[in-house]
Amino acid sequence: MLLIALDKKDHLPAYRQIARRIEKLIETEAIGEGDILPPTRRLARQLNVSRYTVYCAYQELWARGFLVSTPGSYSRVRARAAGVRIGRSEHEVSTTTPVDRLIDLGAYRLDEGLFPMRDLRRALQRVSRDENASLLHYGDPQGYLPLRETIASRLCSHSIPAGPENILITNGALHGLDLAFRLLAREGGRIIVEEPTFKGALSLSRLHGVTPIGVPLREDGMDEVVLRKRLGQRGLRFLFIIPSFQNPSGITTSQERRERILSLCEWRGLPVVEDAFEEEMSYFGSVVLPLKSMDRTGAVLSLGTFSKVLFPGLRIGWIAADRCRIEKLCAIRKLSDDGGNTMMQATMNELCLSGSYQKHLELVNKVYARRMRAVLESLSCHIPPEKATWTRPCGGYLVWLTLESTSMSEAELRSRLRAQGVDAEPGSGCFPKAPARLHLRLSISTHTEEVLREGIRRLGKALEMA
Amino acid sequence: MLLIALDKKDHLPAYRQIARRIEKLIETEAIGEGDILPPTRRLARQLNVSRYTVYCAYQELWARGFLVSTPGSYSRVRARAAGVRIGRSEHEVSTTTPVDRLIDLGAYRLDEGLFPMRDLRRALQRVSRDENASLLHYGDPQGYLPLRETIASRLCSHSIPAGPENILITNGALHGLDLAFRLLAREGGRIIVEEPTFKGALSLSRLHGVTPIGVPLREDGMDEVVLRKRLGQRGLRFLFIIPSFQNPSGITTSQERRERILSLCEWRGLPVVEDAFEEEMSYFGSVVLPLKSMDRTGAVLSLGTFSKVLFPGLRIGWIAADRCRIEKLCAIRKLSDDGGNTMMQATMNELCLSGSYQKHLELVNKVYARRMRAVLESLSCHIPPEKATWTRPCGGYLVWLTLESTSMSEAELRSRLRAQGVDAEPGSGCFPKAPARLHLRLSISTHTEEVLREGIRRLGKALEMA
Repeated sequence: MLLIALDKKDHLPAYRQIARRIEKLIETEAIGEGDILPPTRRLARQLNVSRYTVYCAYQELWARGFLVSTPGSYSRVRARAAGVRIGRSEHEVSTTTPVDRLIDLGAYRLDEGLFPMRDLRRALQRVSRDENASLLHYGDPQGYLPLRETIASRLCSHSIPAGPENILITNGALHGLDLAFRLLAREGGRIIVEEPTFKGALSLSRLHGVTPIGVPLREDGMDEVVLRKRLGQRGLRFLFIIPSFQNPSGITTSQERRERILSLCEWRGLPVVEDAFEEEMSYFGSVVLPLKSMDRTGAVLSLGTFSKVLFPGLRIGWIAADRCRIEKLCAIRKLSDDGGNTMMQATMNELCLSGSYQKHLELVNKVYARRMRAVLESLSCHIPPEKATWTRPCGGYLVWLTLESTSMSEAELRSRLRAQGVDAEPGSGCFPKAPARLHLRLSISTHTEEVLREGIRRLGKALEMA
Repeated sequence: MLLIALDKKDHLPAYRQIARRIEKLIETEAIGEGDILPPTRRLARQLNVSRYTVYCAYQELWARGFLVSTPGSYSRVRARAAGVRIGRSEHEVSTTTPVDRLIDLGAYRLDEGLFPMRDLRRALQRVSRDENASLLHYGDPQGYLPLRETIASRLCSHSIPAGPENILITNGALHGLDLAFRLLAREGGRIIVEEPTFKGALSLSRLHGVTPIGVPLREDGMDEVVLRKRLGQRGLRFLFIIPSFQNPSGITTSQERRERILSLCEWRGLPVVEDAFEEEMSYFGSVVLPLKSMDRTGAVLSLGTFSKVLFPGLRIGWIAADRCRIEKLCAIRKLSDDGGNTMMQATMNELCLSGSYQKHLELVNKVYARRMRAVLESLSCHIPPEKATWTRPCGGYLVWLTLESTSMSEAELRSRLRAQGVDAEPGSGCFPKAPARLHLRLSISTHTEEVLREGIRRLGKALEMA
């Protein structure tokens, strides 16, 4: 039995009081790694609160990295990462907890404390039953039909009318982009990209012998004047766009701009490859429609993935497009790797159908929203406005910092950062041509709020002295 | 308790008697689908035989499709495939069991009754433990290190000196070949292939804009006179060879010929891509060394896969090559799909380390050796020598039939086959240019001996009338 009590006079809501008390017990090592917390029902009875209150407390603790499993029954206390004190309440000041090793704000590894391992084990057990042996054969190169149906129905809820025949399952979004290159681009051609853009798209261009041409990003998407000019060029194969929470900038292209970009491309007969990888990770602001949902001519190929929310290691993404393009992509896919891992696709489908994906998506969005807020707050606190500006993403997990000073090289900048015990992803790799300014990409996916705050404090110190 | 008794006067060995008795019980439906057979220890005591004898009986039953799990504890009676009576003893004549639906001798789907599902479940459970959450991140694009170590040590046992740094894990052998094309071939180039060759290699050539040039296969490998001529051509990128139990011909290139082919390519400075996909599936005849084991200049890239023995659906293969090439391949791999499924790679490693892969390999080889013998026997019985000739593979699972008649089209041939209730994979797709003769590829991987025998009887009938 947990020895905790609530204070009726405390201004904090009951669930936060419970979370605080348990946090205290963990910190004082009254309870330790691997210990099981009481079931919500029992603790609720003990404290004379609703079960939902306890559930919220556990969710809070879990979201801050104190628990292993998702809230509900049998939550366990989590192992702490060596050297880094894990999540404290966002309202506490972190002066008492120095973080003594390098904080890499560029790291975009997902926080593995957030992985729903138990759900995964259950799904794996179900799909690996004897009667499912057929899942272990070479599968349909287009992908496991029930998962295609699940994805199609999710897309429908994003206003993309799609059936399973419009979906090709890939080994992640990058694989989808590679297939799009194979279908649409010939060596010597050109593609239009946002500037900055996803580094991997630039590398893939090089691999395919294709030249990327940049269109600068404004606050609400590609600069249209420049885009119109670029569209006049010869040898264009497709336009590549990440309309929501763009990688690396975090920028979301506005609804009006999406419509105009699409109609310009339609008019020009240019296919659009839309990377909608973070489509479901919107947590501030209003919903914007994916380009694919406005596509009436079949111009748009839409790439998606489960990697940014659930297990990236399962390597499952998709392409949504019109049937004729999907058939051609399928043929290429079959030629190049004989199709994907059907059992993993079935596992992912289990995770979707059991509600585990949706539940996890909501939790991740909650955690990330909080971290994003912490990062934006910290940037305002610690970065002098004359030193740098930054984007204010309404979703995803990336923030893009642009430095005012141009007298420093990227290498110098990074050595200054490292001297302060912090690092970030340098931005120059995201441009088709070397940019005039210095940029840094910060990610919120790996670290807890406390570590992020401390990292940004160090970043501010490094920039102050620059 | 199983009510069976042994007959001391019977000429059959005890294990075969036991198998026969149990088979009878299944046929008369005294025991049915899902029933558990007694543990080997108990049945051995009951019949006063050694436990090994019972083990052999169960193994026999399992190999012939009567049981679900591999021999040992708790074998279950298996569901029968609709319409096809499953495995009978190879010594029985099948007049009493007509097979009334089309037998596709071209099908190369593995017999799923052979999949070790229990071992897989155990391995999945182990790798999906909470403490293994890190396996669900983006992994090393070169592949999971412990699996690379395991593969390297297996290769060492095939005389290929390799460390984990020489291995890149791929999504199957075809994916490995695609990466080899990306590394070695440029659009407009040429590659040398065996004639006939693996259909997928010809399709991949087209995808990469590369022209395949054929060198006819003789009984012990590529025709050297033609090869020398071809090596004089311009724009050659690599030579592609399947030296053991070639797909589609089943031919094994002799040791002397392997050495000469390799030294010709070395002399010409031409890389060799060796598809050693069935390397471990040798069950007749002596061992021949892989080309990679004789490679002193780093000319050879060797492709391997687990798909032909264990679960094809796991999509795990590898490329073994010198370090410099592996590094370049890795870079391409990272660019094109961000690496493979680490958890599946860890699962495969579990299956290797627990001995499950080796055990399964031995069982599969045993089953296939028997089926191959049945097919070769049946061909001798049913195919008139003036109608066709065929290869006599010493491993793998493919037999190649060449028809004497040239007056028929491939489409005519197949409609004749179908009229007799049989089909096979037509051979024309395996040639860079349309071949002069008609060929059929037969596979032993899908059907039991009885079905194979019946299929070949039908094949003989179709050819007789041709």
